[in-house]
Amino acid sequence: MAQGFTGKILRVNLTDGTTSVEELDPVIYRRYLGGGALATYFLLKEMPPGVDPLGPDNMLVFMCSILTGTPIPGFSRFTVAAKSPLTEGFAESEAGGFWGPELKWAGFDGIIIKGKSPKPVYLWIKDGECEIRDASHIWGKTTGEAEKIIREELGDNRIRIAQTGPGGENLVRYACILNNVKHANGRTGLGAVMGSKNLRAVAVRGTQKLALHDEEGVRNVTRWFAQNWRENPRQVIMHNLGTSNGVLNMNAGGILPTKNFRTGTFEHADKISGQALVDTILIEREGCYACPVRCKRVVDVKGEYDVDPYYGGPEYETIGSLGSLCCIGDLPAIAKGSELCNKYGIDTISTGVAIAFAMECYEEGILTKEDTGGIDLRFGNVDAMLAMIEQIAFRKGLGDILAEGVARAAEKIGKGAERFAMHVKKQELPMHEPRGKKSLILAYAVSPTGADHMENPHDGDFASRSPAMERVAPLGFIEPVEAFDLSHRKVRQFAYLQKIWSLYNSLGVCTFVAAPVYTLTFDKMIEALEAATGWKTSLWELMKVAERADTMARCFNVREGFTREDDTLPDRIFGPLEGGALEGVGVDRDVFQEMLSCYYGMVGWDPETGVPTKARLAELELDWIELPEG
Amino acid sequence: MAQGFTGKILRVNLTDGTTSVEELDPVIYRRYLGGGALATYFLLKEMPPGVDPLGPDNMLVFMCSILTGTPIPGFSRFTVAAKSPLTEGFAESEAGGFWGPELKWAGFDGIIIKGKSPKPVYLWIKDGECEIRDASHIWGKTTGEAEKIIREELGDNRIRIAQTGPGGENLVRYACILNNVKHANGRTGLGAVMGSKNLRAVAVRGTQKLALHDEEGVRNVTRWFAQNWRENPRQVIMHNLGTSNGVLNMNAGGILPTKNFRTGTFEHADKISGQALVDTILIEREGCYACPVRCKRVVDVKGEYDVDPYYGGPEYETIGSLGSLCCIGDLPAIAKGSELCNKYGIDTISTGVAIAFAMECYEEGILTKEDTGGIDLRFGNVDAMLAMIEQIAFRKGLGDILAEGVARAAEKIGKGAERFAMHVKKQELPMHEPRGKKSLILAYAVSPTGADHMENPHDGDFASRSPAMERVAPLGFIEPVEAFDLSHRKVRQFAYLQKIWSLYNSLGVCTFVAAPVYTLTFDKMIEALEAATGWKTSLWELMKVAERADTMARCFNVREGFTREDDTLPDRIFGPLEGGALEGVGVDRDVFQEMLSCYYGMVGWDPETGVPTKARLAELELDWIELPEG
Repeated sequence: MAQGFTGKILRVNLTDGTTSVEELDPVIYRRYLGGGALATYFLLKEMPPGVDPLGPDNMLVFMCSILTGTPIPGFSRFTVAAKSPLTEGFAESEAGGFWGPELKWAGFDGIIIKGKSPKPVYLWIKDGECEIRDASHIWGKTTGEAEKIIREELGDNRIRIAQTGPGGENLVRYACILNNVKHANGRTGLGAVMGSKNLRAVAVRGTQKLALHDEEGVRNVTRWFAQNWRENPRQVIMHNLGTSNGVLNMNAGGILPTKNFRTGTFEHADKISGQALVDTILIEREGCYACPVRCKRVVDVKGEYDVDPYYGGPEYETIGSLGSLCCIGDLPAIAKGSELCNKYGIDTISTGVAIAFAMECYEEGILTKEDTGGIDLRFGNVDAMLAMIEQIAFRKGLGDILAEGVARAAEKIGKGAERFAMHVKKQELPMHEPRGKKSLILAYAVSPTGADHMENPHDGDFASRSPAMERVAPLGFIEPVEAFDLSHRKVRQFAYLQKIWSLYNSLGVCTFVAAPVYTLTFDKMIEALEAATGWKTSLWELMKVAERADTMARCFNVREGFTREDDTLPDRIFGPLEGGALEGVGVDRDVFQEMLSCYYGMVGWDPETGVPTKARLAELELDWIELPEG
Repeated sequence: MAQGFTGKILRVNLTDGTTSVEELDPVIYRRYLGGGALATYFLLKEMPPGVDPLGPDNMLVFMCSILTGTPIPGFSRFTVAAKSPLTEGFAESEAGGFWGPELKWAGFDGIIIKGKSPKPVYLWIKDGECEIRDASHIWGKTTGEAEKIIREELGDNRIRIAQTGPGGENLVRYACILNNVKHANGRTGLGAVMGSKNLRAVAVRGTQKLALHDEEGVRNVTRWFAQNWRENPRQVIMHNLGTSNGVLNMNAGGILPTKNFRTGTFEHADKISGQALVDTILIEREGCYACPVRCKRVVDVKGEYDVDPYYGGPEYETIGSLGSLCCIGDLPAIAKGSELCNKYGIDTISTGVAIAFAMECYEEGILTKEDTGGIDLRFGNVDAMLAMIEQIAFRKGLGDILAEGVARAAEKIGKGAERFAMHVKKQELPMHEPRGKKSLILAYAVSPTGADHMENPHDGDFASRSPAMERVAPLGFIEPVEAFDLSHRKVRQFAYLQKIWSLYNSLGVCTFVAAPVYTLTFDKMIEALEAATGWKTSLWELMKVAERADTMARCFNVREGFTREDDTLPDRIFGPLEGGALEGVGVDRDVFQEMLSCYYGMVGWDPETGVPTKARLAELELDWIELPEG
């Protein structure tokens, strides 16, 4: 029998306080692998459409991959999935760090949580056992404080804790889940789902060895990675400069999201670049379990803003959203904003986009000082940005409206504010510009979670005979597709790479080691999986798992009433960029609709409606899914 | 630049007697590989719909694979393709032997022949040169005689000759092409296309070494095969008993086509089995280039029928069609029939089915001794069977009608004879029973060439946790599909395995070493391809080539006016089998239509019409194909 997985799923009913352990058929693992695909399977199987995402009937699924917990670099990630309070559709978000491996060592591949606790609780999982514990004393505490209290009361400093913060308790619709207070399942408001269930944290400690089919084989891939990652220049840059290594290039290319996506060029880009971070506030490079790349930053700031290094440092998405998007070029202030978001458990991307939205409304006279409680909410106002983070997390003043996300906020504010609400399916745009990275036109529009930075193959990487092109050759990409080619060639490139990105989420592997510009080849990924499980698999089988995952997520949204009309982009993206290298460039609406139909057809969905066809469901062994008629 | 292929295509215009050499873009090789896919590409690109298959505008394409000519066992095969005189649709047929490798060593991957010679000719190709030579003196000669004459006049006994025979000259619609007078591109009437062009033979001699990316890598796969094939019991049986090894099992299972498909059980099965052949008339086991399996038979018969060992011996398809299908249990007589077909260059399958058809018409009183010229054309009459082969090849008497194939013959004969015409798309059924091997329900119905024995994954092999199930696991086949399960699970199994079978035809590899019950795994196939070319490929990329090939062939037929109504089975197959283990079993028409729609949808064709969708064409980079509207 295949190994790598523990074979066990922990089930928790918060309403009645019961737990149980389910042993899963190995066939399920092979068909749905783990992570995103397996989590989606449970959501679709066990939750009817139409439930209130903040009510007791929502499910919250934590799911590791088969390879999470092995020493292979890059496979530390786990998925959290539910119905999203932000989009009211499918929610999924991954995080790295140390929590996923710890859960595996504790004897579980995943946790399925249902119901709502009558009072604040946290889960304490150790070596196959689970206890539901009172959390009244940590309710309202920052993530750092909560982590400390839990570790102390359980008497083990090596406990790993995935938790939401005050943001989740206050049902901020984009509250997140953090482990080690800095690795975030950031998107789709999963922290609010925890909050709505009175579940503050999941504390885990595991000492069980993971059974592997071929330990030497797993060690071989691990060794191969250790010996080879420094040969890849992009991987070394990721280590040196972190995820914000691309800021200057993006700015030069006119695609650094700035001033709420009005422009793609920011005058202070040099002050917020990966290099600037290294040169000014970096004190340490950190990583996830077993990963030598250490792309995460630890910063220390003293002075106007004290930033606690315990919360790590800002990733690129945070530097973009709290920085250039708000026209803020002050790196210590951005680091402070990052720290606050991590303390309160709210997603930095949605937070930054919400603040930039409010700033534009303010500058356009739609919001006034009366609305802001006296704050001069201009673009570039550092103090205003930091104040709004507090307001959002605690739902104070204008923050109470912004905590709903920009789509709902714009509706509430009225006066044409929706022009400035940068979202798809009510989830805020991440810091990548679809008018420049053309694959994102489809990536944002069709993503089942709304605009999402984890569906982000960079066109430029595949537009020439680069090393990345060689890496994707096994997909059948023989000729490069030019970056601005919007024909079916771009659609095909996206459709295939989307599967690869989806696969990463089910394999629990980080795009920053596995994406085609980095170290881990498809072959090594398969070698790792085969060594762990004893399966004999192929890129074909794995791509089919990815198709399965994408199609299940689509079905989830179809059941919830989403239609083709929801697969769109903010109006602003159809219009021209202001200034910068791509001045005047927008997305043509007719071309967009053509791309959409072509994409639907290519992935086996009805080319008009985007609903997965019966034959496609049958092919993917998803014939158990019931879709509404018509 | 990738290697393995020569990069050169020989072009021959028979009308004006010119030849030229085209150097092909390596991108084309990677997208279309070779063999079936590449041949189909040229047909679709260069031939408009509606041409007369026996006129000068038909194209005749010979195409090797990238691996043809390497020493790796099983990769000796090449494709011949054209528009079929039998089906008036897509024609493709593969043969093993020695001709394909020789063509590669002569410096060409393939030959594209257009036009019609004013007089009989043959091609003489040696080391990059091509001469069109007079063939008047071999016109009318048997294949053996012609081969001898050509070798003598060119003064080289190692010349390999692919030729048709008198059958092709006489435009028998199922005339075939033979190399070494016994390896047949048997189906779809490609010999008649040669005949119609006044092209009797293509003689080839090559002494050039094939450039390979990694010779040691190629040697490794070759060595691996040599060291491992005897570990596979089914492969050893194939060596020992040849392709007719399954006769007794099929008979016991009630699926040995007998009495023109009225029944699946034959009282004299034991006299025509693989074991009987070994015990009585076998004098030698032969094989194709570089293959140690040597599944081919050489027989010697003296006495009532003298059979010349030079023409080899009967394969299973021949034993079925000239044997059980005609109720003939006389192995020497079947061997004689096989020899005659090879001498005259006519397909043994279609020939046998045509004779069985005539026998049933005779027994039913639709044909009389007046029609047969006095022959008592009863089932089981050996002399009648042999006489009819002669009549068909030379279009004498009733043979002139039967030479048109059973569909046209039935129309000509009238009186309800079409009830006994066992064909799909006018091509005669091979010796596998769809009422027992359920995958064949779809395989026969949707095959672009009409009923074809080369689309024949055996359900039974995948119906349990057999070694074959493990071998196909990389396709995502986790759970077995029961043999008689006709749900979408069977459709999916067929749809994926059909791609694999199609891939074999583009890789030039023999199903008798590569099919999942035999030796060559997907991994080794890919290893071989990568070693030869230097590509880094995957099962995903190769499956996409197969989808490309299948979809191109479908488009060819759509352009020619084929519709869903042509994807069907003979009436008899919808009715019950008479006697035997599956007595009373037929194919349900409603279930059949459901399977068809499901299949269309799964492969990305319109589920109603079976026409490939625009998005599917775009995905497969086939957007250059123009299909009629509607």
